[in-house]
Amino acid sequence: MTDNPVVDAARRARTASTALATATRAVKDRALHAMADALVDGTAEIMAGNDADVAAARDAGTATALIDRLSLTPDRIGGMADGLRQTAALADPVGEVVRGSTLPNGLELRQIRVPFGVVGIIYEARPNVTADAAGLCLKSGNAVLLRGSASAARSNAAIVRVLRDAVARVGLPADAIQLLDSSSRDSVKELMRARGLVDVLVPRGGASLITSVVEESTVPVIETGVGNCHVYVHADADLDMALSILLNAKTSRPSVCNAAESVLVHADVAEAFLAKALPALRDAGVTVHGSPAVVEAGRAVSVDVAPATEADHAAEYLSLDLSASVVPSLSAAVEHIRRYGTGHSEAIVTGSVAAARTFVSTVDAAAVLVNASTRFVDGGEFGFGAEIGISTQKLHARGPMGLPELTSTKYVVTGEGQVR
Amino acid sequence: MTDNPVVDAARRARTASTALATATRAVKDRALHAMADALVDGTAEIMAGNDADVAAARDAGTATALIDRLSLTPDRIGGMADGLRQTAALADPVGEVVRGSTLPNGLELRQIRVPFGVVGIIYEARPNVTADAAGLCLKSGNAVLLRGSASAARSNAAIVRVLRDAVARVGLPADAIQLLDSSSRDSVKELMRARGLVDVLVPRGGASLITSVVEESTVPVIETGVGNCHVYVHADADLDMALSILLNAKTSRPSVCNAAESVLVHADVAEAFLAKALPALRDAGVTVHGSPAVVEAGRAVSVDVAPATEADHAAEYLSLDLSASVVPSLSAAVEHIRRYGTGHSEAIVTGSVAAARTFVSTVDAAAVLVNASTRFVDGGEFGFGAEIGISTQKLHARGPMGLPELTSTKYVVTGEGQVR
Repeated sequence: MTDNPVVDAARRARTASTALATATRAVKDRALHAMADALVDGTAEIMAGNDADVAAARDAGTATALIDRLSLTPDRIGGMADGLRQTAALADPVGEVVRGSTLPNGLELRQIRVPFGVVGIIYEARPNVTADAAGLCLKSGNAVLLRGSASAARSNAAIVRVLRDAVARVGLPADAIQLLDSSSRDSVKELMRARGLVDVLVPRGGASLITSVVEESTVPVIETGVGNCHVYVHADADLDMALSILLNAKTSRPSVCNAAESVLVHADVAEAFLAKALPALRDAGVTVHGSPAVVEAGRAVSVDVAPATEADHAAEYLSLDLSASVVPSLSAAVEHIRRYGTGHSEAIVTGSVAAARTFVSTVDAAAVLVNASTRFVDGGEFGFGAEIGISTQKLHARGPMGLPELTSTKYVVTGEGQVR
Repeated sequence: MTDNPVVDAARRARTASTALATATRAVKDRALHAMADALVDGTAEIMAGNDADVAAARDAGTATALIDRLSLTPDRIGGMADGLRQTAALADPVGEVVRGSTLPNGLELRQIRVPFGVVGIIYEARPNVTADAAGLCLKSGNAVLLRGSASAARSNAAIVRVLRDAVARVGLPADAIQLLDSSSRDSVKELMRARGLVDVLVPRGGASLITSVVEESTVPVIETGVGNCHVYVHADADLDMALSILLNAKTSRPSVCNAAESVLVHADVAEAFLAKALPALRDAGVTVHGSPAVVEAGRAVSVDVAPATEADHAAEYLSLDLSASVVPSLSAAVEHIRRYGTGHSEAIVTGSVAAARTFVSTVDAAAVLVNASTRFVDGGEFGFGAEIGISTQKLHARGPMGLPELTSTKYVVTGEGQVR
């Protein structure tokens, strides 16, 4: 024991991780089903904690959208349980042979997936992340240190209590899942300094949280999720398809990172496209922040377009706002994306194989889409079954992260006495 | 232009990287062959720079081993050229489809390898690393910023000059390869703060360099190479095999990270094994730092064994020194390795399938070897053809890093207008 509760928790996690690393899939899946059942059985306890959190948030004058994200219902708890059962159904990444060969000297070489060990997750006031992250880490053989938001402290405590009990009941260490104190920023700081005890940190949340973790952490970090995603309408695009993709990417769920925040239109089709798109966007409740050419196109069809500032082009609005520009060429579109994009998801609408190839090869992003909505960039949509976040960094994982992205690898070399 | 030369170099590298990212294998291989030819043609120029570096190092009283690493000969320059030609012969990692599928809605999903963009390498006074790293980065489509040692500044400048000329001759941007100023630590500091311009930093060198980069860098880092590697002799080991492996692992090249630094012997065979091993190690010039049981075993065969301290068990000697302990069990050996190991390469010598399985699954290291020397943990030996270093971290790459480890991935999604 030290006088540092995060270090103590990390040490307990490290010990737990050695048991988890060698746990069979059967045992881990039993634990996940027990966790799911325990969430449902513990609904009253979890709701009591959540009710207290929600009441405190209301008293503090928290915005309605945030209170909605914080609030649980028995249905939502059931959804968390279903998520754990779905995770149980996924293949176990641990032990997968990534590559293997027999070397010229007869040595057998295998590269196999192994758990990281201890994973730290720093996240905001969404209690469902507590169960999701615990389930994904357990399935991938990792112990998890959860550092949620203070505003969800009672909800998270209740969820973690029932999950730990369930894990212990199937014979795995309860310390596979631990909740860190969220009453001050100290626990985040300690987590970022716990190099050697914590193998990787995944910050989930706003840009400022992620930036501060990236700047301060000596523990390796996987950066997630800031998305200023573009839809580029090329000169030869099917304009109906382009409009359908743009409306979907912008309006189907504006608050998520794979929603479009910017549209770029090739000058050759700007008039025709904007004459359709601007009224449709207005009707869908979208405020367009446009370059001068877009403002003018708005005037022609009697749609108000706000003049776009530099900040608009760079914005991740997460709301029904959209920046819009007319570009003279495909390469100008790519240049605009290079300047303002966040490397998340970028789409082109085009009928041209050559334009698609150029866009795909020159746009530097986690995902590049041809004739499809940016909203598809998602672990569930990609068929990964679950997602711990969407990485926008290039190291280790890029794009939606499923179970394999929560593992490292180990080389195993087997011989009969070979020396060099 | 800024008043910061590292930022300026990184921006030029970023621009160069866009041309490199879409360069075909044919062009990149032409560049590598041109670079190899240019090294040979430039031998006189490179030797002149190297002679000046070596003379300055001698004047400064540098140790002979370091001067040997710094010194070039026409033969060594020829070896660097051969390395570049071998890199040309390797498969191009860029564009490899890592996974792919057609989603239920008809979207075609591919995850493809793409270059990182800009790679920074910080390394010590070995001029051959300059050519090796430049070649590996070019083949993997990355621009490289090389920050070598001040003591090799003239050698590196000459090498980079001829390499840049060669790259430009085949039509690729010369700024694909840039050497940073090594006259002060400022360039290292700037490199570590160049987040957004530099995609990954690879520090190669001693533990203190690596630790300081890990602590201070906001650019993602791949940690390389500190190795306190163990050979564990299990109770049922073939003792001749164990001795052969130990001698090879310790003495074939003591200065490298995959050399053994510690031997652990199961108590049941300690007397028999040490009676053979201690005289053989002495004859090979090895100084053994032993636990009390090993000191006693030395006395029985008239071999001096120095009493081991805690520091000995933890040491990466990189010399003809070896720490030695007797352990009561396999699990005690694993525990010892957990305590003192650096997660590099760990070997067991055993005839038992069960013991091998337990060792492989419970030892947490980049490479685990059964009945083979730790010296095999090497990109060349593993058949990767080249190596940028050996990662001892768990994120992104673990163990010997070849060309694929110098890449990231990108998801490409192709549809016909799908929306969600």
